Amino acid sequence: MNFASDNTAGVAPEILDALVRANEGFVLGYGNDDLTKGVERRIGEIFERDVAVFLVPTGTAANALALAHVSPPWGAVFAHNEAHIVTDECGAPEFFGNGLKLIGLPGVGCKVAADTFAAALEPYRGHAPHQVIPSALSISQVSEAGTIYRPDEIAALAAIAHARGMKLHMDGARLANALVRLNASPAEATWKAGVDVLSFGATKGGAMAAEAVVFFDRALAAQMGERRKRAGHLVSKHRFIAAQFDAYLRDDCWLRLARHANAMADRLALGLEKAGLAPVWPVEANLVFAILPKAVEERLRAAGARYYVRVSDCLPPGVAIGPGDVLVRLVTSFATRETEIDRLAGIAAKA
Amino acid sequence: MNFASDNTAGVAPEILDALVRANEGFVLGYGNDDLTKGVERRIGEIFERDVAVFLVPTGTAANALALAHVSPPWGAVFAHNEAHIVTDECGAPEFFGNGLKLIGLPGVGCKVAADTFAAALEPYRGHAPHQVIPSALSISQVSEAGTIYRPDEIAALAAIAHARGMKLHMDGARLANALVRLNASPAEATWKAGVDVLSFGATKGGAMAAEAVVFFDRALAAQMGERRKRAGHLVSKHRFIAAQFDAYLRDDCWLRLARHANAMADRLALGLEKAGLAPVWPVEANLVFAILPKAVEERLRAAGARYYVRVSDCLPPGVAIGPGDVLVRLVTSFATRETEIDRLAGIAAKA
Amino acid sequence: MNFASDNTAGVAPEILDALVRANEGFVLGYGNDDLTKGVERRIGEIFERDVAVFLVPTGTAANALALAHVSPPWGAVFAHNEAHIVTDECGAPEFFGNGLKLIGLPGVGCKVAADTFAAALEPYRGHAPHQVIPSALSISQVSEAGTIYRPDEIAALAAIAHARGMKLHMDGARLANALVRLNASPAEATWKAGVDVLSFGATKGGAMAAEAVVFFDRALAAQMGERRKRAGHLVSKHRFIAAQFDAYLRDDCWLRLARHANAMADRLALGLEKAGLAPVWPVEANLVFAILPKAVEERLRAAGARYYVRVSDCLPPGVAIGPGDVLVRLVTSFATRETEIDRLAGIAAKA
Amino acid sequence: MNFASDNTAGVAPEILDALVRANEGFVLGYGNDDLTKGVERRIGEIFERDVAVFLVPTGTAANALALAHVSPPWGAVFAHNEAHIVTDECGAPEFFGNGLKLIGLPGVGCKVAADTFAAALEPYRGHAPHQVIPSALSISQVSEAGTIYRPDEIAALAAIAHARGMKLHMDGARLANALVRLNASPAEATWKAGVDVLSFGATKGGAMAAEAVVFFDRALAAQMGERRKRAGHLVSKHRFIAAQFDAYLRDDCWLRLARHANAMADRLALGLEKAGLAPVWPVEANLVFAILPKAVEERLRAAGARYYVRVSDCLPPGVAIGPGDVLVRLVTSFATRETEIDRLAGIAAKA
Repeated sequence: MNFASDNTAGVAPEILDALVRANEGFVLGYGNDDLTKGVERRIGEIFERDVAVFLVPTGTAANALALAHVSPPWGAVFAHNEAHIVTDECGAPEFFGNGLKLIGLPGVGCKVAADTFAAALEPYRGHAPHQVIPSALSISQVSEAGTIYRPDEIAALAAIAHARGMKLHMDGARLANALVRLNASPAEATWKAGVDVLSFGATKGGAMAAEAVVFFDRALAAQMGERRKRAGHLVSKHRFIAAQFDAYLRDDCWLRLARHANAMADRLALGLEKAGLAPVWPVEANLVFAILPKAVEERLRAAGARYYVRVSDCLPPGVAIGPGDVLVRLVTSFATRETEIDRLAGIAAKA
Repeated sequence: MNFASDNTAGVAPEILDALVRANEGFVLGYGNDDLTKGVERRIGEIFERDVAVFLVPTGTAANALALAHVSPPWGAVFAHNEAHIVTDECGAPEFFGNGLKLIGLPGVGCKVAADTFAAALEPYRGHAPHQVIPSALSISQVSEAGTIYRPDEIAALAAIAHARGMKLHMDGARLANALVRLNASPAEATWKAGVDVLSFGATKGGAMAAEAVVFFDRALAAQMGERRKRAGHLVSKHRFIAAQFDAYLRDDCWLRLARHANAMADRLALGLEKAGLAPVWPVEANLVFAILPKAVEERLRAAGARYYVRVSDCLPPGVAIGPGDVLVRLVTSFATRETEIDRLAGIAAKA
Repeated sequence: MNFASDNTAGVAPEILDALVRANEGFVLGYGNDDLTKGVERRIGEIFERDVAVFLVPTGTAANALALAHVSPPWGAVFAHNEAHIVTDECGAPEFFGNGLKLIGLPGVGCKVAADTFAAALEPYRGHAPHQVIPSALSISQVSEAGTIYRPDEIAALAAIAHARGMKLHMDGARLANALVRLNASPAEATWKAGVDVLSFGATKGGAMAAEAVVFFDRALAAQMGERRKRAGHLVSKHRFIAAQFDAYLRDDCWLRLARHANAMADRLALGLEKAGLAPVWPVEANLVFAILPKAVEERLRAAGARYYVRVSDCLPPGVAIGPGDVLVRLVTSFATRETEIDRLAGIAAKA
Repeated sequence: MNFASDNTAGVAPEILDALVRANEGFVLGYGNDDLTKGVERRIGEIFERDVAVFLVPTGTAANALALAHVSPPWGAVFAHNEAHIVTDECGAPEFFGNGLKLIGLPGVGCKVAADTFAAALEPYRGHAPHQVIPSALSISQVSEAGTIYRPDEIAALAAIAHARGMKLHMDGARLANALVRLNASPAEATWKAGVDVLSFGATKGGAMAAEAVVFFDRALAAQMGERRKRAGHLVSKHRFIAAQFDAYLRDDCWLRLARHANAMADRLALGLEKAGLAPVWPVEANLVFAILPKAVEERLRAAGARYYVRVSDCLPPGVAIGPGDVLVRLVTSFATRETEIDRLAGIAAKA
């Protein structure tokens, strides 16, 4: 019963096999190999666009490199207060961006609403050069609350950003989980809605350590190769990071894995609901948040369930965590099995 | 006949197997797993010392993180003019070190001699605060010319550095290749000779993407966890980077792989020598440099041999590259086979 | 009727005279002169402490250099949401601090309350290395709302900071204005209350361009000389920045100038109050904030009054800016004359 | 007999008077004043070009801000090995430029020769993204050896730089001294010869603390205001830095002051030559270098002469410093008097 994170799962078999296959023979390093070139091409096909692709081993690297590349050091990057880049990357965007500033925004369900964003931009006018300059908005798809942005929501945010000369970044660590829920193509959910640069995650979805920074406008990516290299994120035996993406994207593997994870989350939500523990936010991907009475929580722990207790300032209006209750995050993945879900739900329901 | 780099080889079977084995079950991410803890312990045992270990996916990351951690932004890091950190990392040490300065030193065979180092420090006295402050010396073991430092050479450099309050960093991307040639234990070749922090490479030796920053004094490593995280170099599914090191170090695998690579280099050197093409520098590890007449070079290319042409300012006294000749670097690895060596030597000898 | 800022005033005559006097003869640059040494000594006497002093030409430089020196790049510096370092320095602390993070806090009257600070620290526990590490609290004395911290308020904040291993920085751009209001010595209002490093301003008080970073513990200042130099803030003809401070501090000039500015603010507050426009926050220094009906505002503008309209999220509970009203900031200085005050108050009262 | 530096002199009377005059009344800060606007216009007139001007208090700031603005973090800035930016700014360009790399070049008389520069660029081809990218050449006019670049020399360097997409920066801390020696207009000696950005010094020439970054192409200066502000180099009472430049440039004051300094250097050179101590490099500005026998040096010291002993690797071919001899740098300024020159020369000649 491990629901601690999607990174507690291992590697999907399709991807592990690909690593073994990729081990054949001698191949040039640093991305000068056919597998890498194929993956770059494949990502372009999936997004129906000529894209510039940079593979890196971690999501923090993908986010920080992407943001630093679309923001000057005196830029302000707006994001939800509880976004991963704000709370969990130890200042990576600020480091890569030579001291750029993250501006945290409130928003129910860890989503940034268009009017919140627009209002937050208001003070950034007419006070040059004393103020930082709004340079990017970063949204997480899936959000940290497990909610997802619809294409029209993204488009509304993009319109505001672009009107101010800002770029729209999407932290797509769980993009697949959003896509299989949305009735939208990868293109529709990203650049057609206004996304300029995407952190396209594979690790949480089933890879070992593989993320891609995808620029939907090649011009925007100029000298990104140097930025990646000097950050130590150009993997030398590059075929192996490419092999992961290759397998992940082949035959819709990524979408299949994400569908499973989402289905497990739905099943978990249903189980909890039956136990009178309705999820805090709509379960739209592979994250389920629930408020558990202390007794339930203790029973789960005792049974060996693993998950994290969370604190959040963006609960739905009217929802509060009572004394003795705890907010917990339960994460499913490609590796989660129905039996584990049912076991957890069963224990929760026992009360 | 691929002699382009040790990173054109794939992954050693022992290590690939370990990755497959590590895929079992759910495991906490970010290094909070038993495999990681075991590797950290094992590295301590190998170096006979209580060490602080930080695994990262690339050598550039290891070097830059290590140097940034032992140097203030106004520090000067001395290194050979042709060291990897000076010529091949696109300014990573400067980036991680917030603008620290690399001072390149000459030296035959890509090695820094003690008196060269001492002389280079001379101007850095009495001109505070206008000058940067010497903070570290970085040496490559094996050097970029394939030569190695003897423990007493290291000790002489360390003595000079320590007398100035500087730290000694070793870029050990090919440390194993040096160790199996030296009659010295890992401890004797590092901290006992005065090394303070080591980039301990496994990738070139046979891993997929695994390097370790090893501090021989734990106090020196304070807050290195934050530095690594914010650089995006804390791998989330950390067990897989640990698994590589675990297999690499188990049952002397690393030394066995290195011995093979070195033996292949020796065989290659012998073959070239017989062809009248004696190596430029003593072959002490897995790098062989030779000056090839144009005709030989073309024959090798035509036969499909892969390697890089190099330029160097640190040739032995009296050695020069004649017009029409080229200096080539031939790298062997755990995956190099005798037949390839013999084939290359044979073609070279045909003239 | 210029109330736009204390930096719209020129230079106090005592200080201008000192510049002229300092122009005699040849003197070593970069602070190696007697005037500089005398000023450093004098600041120590005033604060009754062995201090390390670094003169710089701007307040932004003083703040950013000070904060960068007491915070690692992965540090979090807490400050009021509307502090100058947060809103008006274009990310200088983040730049100097290699990407440190500023955490904005709410607080009535632009002051950070001890319990607000303590609560804000709560989430920064147990999530290493994913989180930044709280490293410093910065408070503005006088605050941006013109309010001042009492020594016991400072001590309460310092106690919380120090218990977490954090440093307390004071942005004392208007320290003199606070001191002449408080019944406290410079020592009591700073290090005796727990301040570790002070940006000691003279510019707003009547100098041309002279600020001092004052460390109350010399050990904390190690290598600050290099930090200042490399930031371009070591003035070459240093005697002239020293001369400003020398005159500013001589014969209580600084306190006399501040007393005048404060008295002008009091007079202004009284005048506005009589006109039914009571200041928004208690007038404790040389800043007066008032909510003006549009008509009054227009009358003042028409009469040539200069000041800035402000927006604030830290108004006293119950105070709101009605539609058509504006919040204005009126700043007095050593150069403000009673006649100007009375004229402005008269126009305001005319309604 | 103070020949230590041009910054040991005080402020020229014209400039001090201007500071006193500028003290009248209230004036908006941060450069929003008429004096500043006038100076910006005046600099444009002098250079016969629409320029973007940014005043800053120090030469290190001017250089570092300028270089950071025309170089990406992965850029390489080429400069003479003994250039001020390389040896005397404690890594300021690296700090401002987020870790850009300075590449030092040899060159007699502290000048970079076109072929040296061209040859140094050679290795920077075809090794992306492992290498930094050549981004700028910085030349010092006057050089640190007191020599000057002719417009055609500058043009030759600019042609090489521009052909590689690099910018040409001129450190013009002593530009006036060069101009009055060259038979060239300010425009001819800068942008007409290919200079893209200039650090235009006034401090050494007679100001208190005033330098200007001058971009000869406005587009190149976009967001430089933010860069300056966040570096703490936007002076608040900005009229005073403007007033210095205003007086410096008015009625050819700057050229008159420079002519005097140069004449003093010429006189000094002549005096030394008569004493058998011919200057090491041609005296082209206000710096005189001589190799003094120990006995002469001691006599000068005993007589109270102040100057610095230097070390240089760029002596003219054939010139060497004998055992017991020292290389000294003697700097003249607007404030140097003939009597001092003659006294020094007399003492030197006494041997």
